[in-house]
Amino acid sequence: MITHIHHINFLVNDLALAITRYSALLGGVEFIEDQLDQRSVKTARTKLGDTWLILVQPTDEQSTPAQHLKQHGEGFFLLSLNCDDLDQEQQRINALSGLNFSTPERTGLEGWRIRDLPKEPFFGTQLQLTQDVNKRE
Amino acid sequence: MITHIHHINFLVNDLALAITRYSALLGGVEFIEDQLDQRSVKTARTKLGDTWLILVQPTDEQSTPAQHLKQHGEGFFLLSLNCDDLDQEQQRINALSGLNFSTPERTGLEGWRIRDLPKEPFFGTQLQLTQDVNKRE
Repeated sequence: MITHIHHINFLVNDLALAITRYSALLGGVEFIEDQLDQRSVKTARTKLGDTWLILVQPTDEQSTPAQHLKQHGEGFFLLSLNCDDLDQEQQRINALSGLNFSTPERTGLEGWRIRDLPKEPFFGTQLQLTQDVNKRE
Repeated sequence: MITHIHHINFLVNDLALAITRYSALLGGVEFIEDQLDQRSVKTARTKLGDTWLILVQPTDEQSTPAQHLKQHGEGFFLLSLNCDDLDQEQQRINALSGLNFSTPERTGLEGWRIRDLPKEPFFGTQLQLTQDVNKRE
Protein backbone atom coordinates (compact mmCIF):
# COMPACT_ATOMS: atom_id res chain seq x y z
CA MET A 1 0.00 0.00 0.00
CA ILE A 2 1.30 3.44 -0.93
CA THR A 3 0.71 5.76 2.00
CA HIS A 4 2.40 9.09 1.23
CA ILE A 5 5.23 10.80 -0.60
CA HIS A 6 8.39 9.58 1.10
CA HIS A 7 10.81 12.02 -0.53
CA ILE A 8 11.25 14.47 -3.36
CA ASN A 9 14.69 15.15 -4.80
CA PHE A 10 15.90 18.34 -6.45
CA LEU A 11 19.18 18.51 -8.33
CA VAL A 12 21.45 21.47 -7.65
CA ASN A 13 24.92 22.51 -8.75
CA ASP A 14 25.95 24.01 -5.42
CA LEU A 15 24.66 22.20 -2.35
CA ALA A 16 25.85 24.80 0.18
CA LEU A 17 24.09 27.62 -1.66
CA ALA A 18 20.94 25.55 -2.07
CA ILE A 19 20.85 24.76 1.66
CA THR A 20 21.13 28.47 2.46
CA ARG A 21 18.28 29.40 0.13
CA TYR A 22 15.92 26.58 1.09
CA SER A 23 16.63 26.91 4.79
CA ALA A 24 15.69 30.61 4.69
CA LEU A 25 12.56 29.80 2.71
CA LEU A 26 11.46 27.15 5.16
CA GLY A 27 12.02 29.26 8.26
CA GLY A 28 15.57 28.40 9.23
CA VAL A 29 15.13 24.64 9.30
CA GLU A 30 18.14 22.36 9.71
CA PHE A 31 19.31 20.23 6.82
CA ILE A 32 21.02 16.89 7.43
CA GLU A 33 24.01 16.62 5.14
CA ASP A 34 24.99 13.21 3.87
CA GLN A 35 26.39 11.40 0.87
CA LEU A 36 25.42 8.35 -1.11
CA ASP A 37 28.49 6.89 -2.74
CA GLN A 38 26.74 4.37 -4.96
CA ARG A 39 24.88 7.26 -6.64
CA SER A 40 27.89 9.60 -6.52
CA VAL A 41 26.00 12.43 -4.82
CA LYS A 42 26.19 14.74 -1.85
CA THR A 43 22.80 15.36 -0.27
CA ALA A 44 21.00 17.59 2.23
CA ARG A 45 17.58 16.65 3.54
CA THR A 46 14.91 18.14 5.75
CA LYS A 47 11.49 16.78 6.61
CA LEU A 48 8.37 18.73 5.67
CA GLY A 49 5.32 17.05 7.16
CA ASP A 50 5.71 13.39 6.25
CA THR A 51 7.96 14.02 3.23
CA TRP A 52 11.72 14.44 2.99
CA LEU A 53 12.82 17.30 0.76
CA ILE A 54 16.26 16.30 -0.53
CA LEU A 55 18.76 18.52 -2.32
CA VAL A 56 21.19 16.51 -4.44
CA GLN A 57 24.53 17.56 -5.89
CA PRO A 58 26.26 15.05 -8.18
CA THR A 59 29.95 14.42 -7.56
CA ASP A 60 30.71 12.31 -10.64
CA GLU A 61 29.86 13.46 -14.15
CA GLN A 62 29.10 9.92 -15.31
CA SER A 63 26.42 9.22 -12.69
CA THR A 64 22.70 9.09 -13.44
CA PRO A 65 21.96 12.21 -11.37
CA ALA A 66 24.75 14.12 -13.11
CA GLN A 67 23.44 13.11 -16.53
CA HIS A 68 19.95 14.30 -15.57
CA LEU A 69 21.34 17.60 -14.32
CA LYS A 70 23.30 18.08 -17.51
CA GLN A 71 20.27 17.35 -19.67
CA HIS A 72 17.53 19.15 -17.74
CA GLY A 73 19.31 21.68 -15.55
CA GLU A 74 18.71 22.23 -11.86
CA GLY A 75 15.32 21.40 -10.39
CA PHE A 76 13.02 18.44 -9.88
CA PHE A 77 14.71 15.06 -10.14
CA LEU A 78 12.40 12.41 -8.71
CA LEU A 79 9.47 11.63 -6.45
CA SER A 80 9.45 8.57 -4.23
CA LEU A 81 6.31 6.90 -2.90
CA ASN A 82 6.33 5.33 0.53
CA CYS A 83 5.19 1.72 0.74
CA ASP A 84 5.09 -0.87 3.52
CA ASP A 85 6.64 -3.70 1.54
CA LEU A 86 8.75 -3.07 -1.54
CA ASP A 87 8.37 -6.50 -3.11
CA GLN A 88 4.62 -6.78 -2.57
CA GLU A 89 4.11 -3.29 -3.95
CA GLN A 90 6.11 -4.08 -7.07
CA GLN A 91 3.95 -7.16 -7.64
CA ARG A 92 0.75 -5.22 -7.04
CA ILE A 93 1.71 -2.46 -9.48
CA ASN A 94 2.69 -4.97 -12.15
CA ALA A 95 -0.60 -6.85 -11.73
CA LEU A 96 -2.74 -3.72 -11.77
CA SER A 97 -0.97 -1.69 -14.41
CA GLY A 98 0.46 -4.33 -16.72
CA LEU A 99 3.85 -2.62 -16.46
CA ASN A 100 5.81 -5.74 -15.56
CA PHE A 101 8.75 -3.72 -14.28
CA SER A 102 11.63 -5.48 -12.60
CA THR A 103 14.15 -2.81 -11.70
CA PRO A 104 16.72 -4.00 -9.17
CA GLU A 105 16.49 -2.87 -5.59
CA ARG A 106 19.02 -0.33 -4.42
CA THR A 107 19.82 1.26 -1.08
CA GLY A 108 19.16 4.93 -0.44
CA LEU A 109 19.99 7.28 2.42
CA GLU A 110 19.44 5.81 5.89
CA GLY A 111 19.23 2.34 4.32
CA TRP A 112 15.95 3.02 2.55
CA ARG A 113 14.96 0.18 0.20
CA ILE A 114 14.31 1.69 -3.23
CA ARG A 115 13.08 0.55 -6.63
CA ASP A 116 12.84 2.95 -9.56
CA LEU A 117 9.74 2.78 -11.72
CA PRO A 118 10.04 3.04 -15.50
CA LYS A 119 9.71 6.67 -16.62
CA GLU A 120 7.88 6.20 -19.88
CA PRO A 121 4.42 5.18 -18.52
CA PHE A 122 4.47 8.19 -16.20
CA PHE A 123 5.15 10.74 -18.89
CA GLY A 124 8.86 11.07 -18.30
CA THR A 125 8.60 11.59 -14.54
CA GLN A 126 11.02 9.54 -12.47
CA LEU A 127 8.93 7.87 -9.80
CA GLN A 128 10.14 5.27 -7.35
CA LEU A 129 9.05 3.19 -4.39
CA THR A 130 10.69 3.49 -0.99
CA GLN A 131 10.33 1.16 1.94
CA ASP A 132 11.63 3.06 4.93
CA VAL A 133 13.16 0.26 6.95
CA ASN A 134 13.79 2.56 9.92
CA LYS A 135 10.05 2.99 10.40
CA ARG A 136 9.49 -0.71 10.96
CA GLU A 137 11.62 -0.88 14.03
CA MET B 1 5.06 28.74 9.40
CA ILE B 2 5.49 26.21 6.61
CA THR B 3 4.16 22.88 7.80
CA HIS B 4 4.19 20.47 4.87
CA ILE B 5 3.96 20.12 1.10
CA HIS B 6 0.42 21.13 0.24
CA HIS B 7 0.41 19.99 -3.38
CA ILE B 8 2.62 18.93 -6.27
CA ASN B 9 1.51 19.48 -9.84
CA PHE B 10 2.46 17.46 -12.88
CA LEU B 11 1.67 18.61 -16.41
CA VAL B 12 0.19 16.08 -18.80
CA ASN B 13 -1.12 16.16 -22.35
CA ASP B 14 -3.96 13.70 -21.79
CA LEU B 15 -5.65 13.94 -18.41
CA ALA B 16 -7.81 10.83 -18.83
CA LEU B 17 -4.80 8.66 -19.71
CA ALA B 18 -2.78 10.12 -16.84
CA ILE B 19 -5.57 9.38 -14.36
CA THR B 20 -5.67 5.76 -15.52
CA ARG B 21 -1.92 5.33 -15.14
CA TYR B 22 -1.56 7.07 -11.79
CA SER B 23 -4.66 5.47 -10.32
CA ALA B 24 -3.30 2.01 -11.13
CA LEU B 25 0.08 2.94 -9.67
CA LEU B 26 -1.44 4.18 -6.44
CA GLY B 27 -3.69 1.19 -5.91
CA GLY B 28 -6.91 2.24 -7.60
CA VAL B 29 -7.34 5.54 -5.78
CA GLU B 30 -10.04 7.98 -6.86
CA PHE B 31 -9.09 11.25 -8.54
CA ILE B 32 -11.27 14.33 -8.14
CA GLU B 33 -11.63 16.00 -11.52
CA ASP B 34 -11.96 19.75 -11.63
CA GLN B 35 -11.03 22.79 -13.68
CA LEU B 36 -9.49 26.14 -12.92
CA ASP B 37 -10.62 28.64 -15.52
CA GLN B 38 -8.27 31.46 -14.52
CA ARG B 39 -5.32 29.15 -15.25
CA SER B 40 -7.00 27.52 -18.27
CA VAL B 41 -6.47 23.99 -17.02
CA LYS B 42 -8.34 20.77 -16.36
CA THR B 43 -7.12 18.98 -13.23
CA ALA B 44 -7.36 15.69 -11.37
CA ARG B 45 -6.20 15.41 -7.76
CA THR B 46 -5.76 12.74 -5.15
CA LYS B 47 -4.37 13.03 -1.65
CA LEU B 48 -1.27 11.07 -0.66
CA GLY B 49 -0.63 11.50 3.05
CA ASP B 50 -0.88 15.22 3.64
CA THR B 51 -0.04 16.22 0.06
CA TRP B 52 -2.31 16.61 -2.98
CA LEU B 53 -0.90 15.06 -6.14
CA ILE B 54 -2.43 17.08 -8.99
CA LEU B 55 -2.40 16.20 -12.68
CA VAL B 56 -2.82 19.27 -14.88
CA GLN B 57 -3.80 19.46 -18.54
CA PRO B 58 -3.73 22.93 -20.13
CA THR B 59 -6.74 23.92 -22.21
CA ASP B 60 -5.40 27.17 -23.71
CA GLU B 61 -2.06 27.33 -25.54
CA GLN B 62 -1.37 30.83 -24.28
CA SER B 63 -1.62 29.99 -20.58
CA THR B 64 1.40 29.73 -18.25
CA PRO B 65 0.94 25.97 -17.74
CA ALA B 66 0.68 25.42 -21.50
CA GLN B 67 3.86 27.42 -22.10
CA HIS B 68 5.68 25.36 -19.46
CA LEU B 69 4.43 22.13 -21.03
CA LYS B 70 5.55 23.28 -24.48
CA GLN B 71 8.99 24.24 -23.21
CA HIS B 72 9.74 21.37 -20.82
CA GLY B 73 7.42 18.54 -21.83
CA GLU B 74 5.23 16.52 -19.52
CA GLY B 75 6.27 16.11 -15.89
CA PHE B 76 6.90 18.17 -12.78
CA PHE B 77 5.35 21.64 -12.86
CA LEU B 78 5.37 23.07 -9.34
CA LEU B 79 5.55 22.37 -5.63
CA SER B 80 3.39 24.29 -3.17
CA LEU B 81 4.22 24.73 0.52
CA ASN B 82 1.43 24.84 3.06
CA CYS B 83 1.40 27.82 5.38
CA ASP B 84 -1.00 29.06 8.05
CA ASP B 85 -1.10 32.67 6.89
CA LEU B 86 -0.18 33.67 3.35
CA ASP B 87 0.61 37.31 4.06
CA GLN B 88 2.66 36.69 7.20
CA GLU B 89 4.62 33.97 5.43
CA GLN B 90 5.42 36.25 2.51
CA GLN B 91 6.73 38.88 4.94
CA ARG B 92 8.76 36.31 6.85
CA ILE B 93 10.38 34.92 3.72
CA ASN B 94 11.23 38.38 2.47
CA ALA B 95 12.77 39.34 5.81
CA LEU B 96 14.79 36.14 6.13
CA SER B 97 15.89 35.64 2.55
CA GLY B 98 16.14 39.16 1.22
CA LEU B 99 14.01 38.16 -1.74
CA ASN B 100 11.49 40.97 -1.44
CA PHE B 101 8.99 39.17 -3.64
CA SER B 102 5.53 40.61 -4.10
CA THR B 103 3.67 38.31 -6.43
CA PRO B 104 -0.08 38.87 -6.40
CA GLU B 105 -2.33 36.43 -4.64
CA ARG B 106 -4.43 34.14 -6.79
CA THR B 107 -7.10 31.55 -6.08
CA GLY B 108 -6.46 27.86 -6.66
CA LEU B 109 -8.66 24.79 -6.54
CA GLU B 110 -11.09 24.68 -3.60
CA GLY B 111 -10.44 28.37 -2.99
CA TRP B 112 -6.82 27.87 -1.89
CA ARG B 113 -4.98 31.17 -1.41
CA ILE B 114 -1.78 30.99 -3.48
CA ARG B 115 1.30 33.12 -4.08
CA ASP B 116 4.01 32.03 -6.50
CA LEU B 117 7.61 32.49 -5.42
CA PRO B 118 10.20 33.77 -7.87
CA LYS B 119 11.87 30.85 -9.69
CA GLU B 120 15.37 32.22 -10.03
CA PRO B 121 16.49 31.99 -6.36
CA PHE B 122 15.33 28.37 -6.22
CA PHE B 123 17.31 27.20 -9.23
CA GLY B 124 14.45 27.35 -11.70
CA THR B 125 11.99 25.38 -9.59
CA GLN B 126 8.51 26.88 -9.38
CA LEU B 127 7.66 26.99 -5.69
CA GLN B 128 4.62 28.60 -4.18
CA LEU B 129 2.82 29.14 -0.90
CA THR B 130 -0.69 27.86 -0.27
CA GLN B 131 -2.99 28.78 2.55
CA ASP B 132 -5.70 26.14 2.58
CA VAL B 133 -8.70 28.16 3.71
CA ASN B 134 -10.84 25.05 4.03
CA LYS B 135 -8.63 23.81 6.85
CA ARG B 136 -9.32 26.83 9.00
CA GLU B 137 -13.00 26.12 9.32
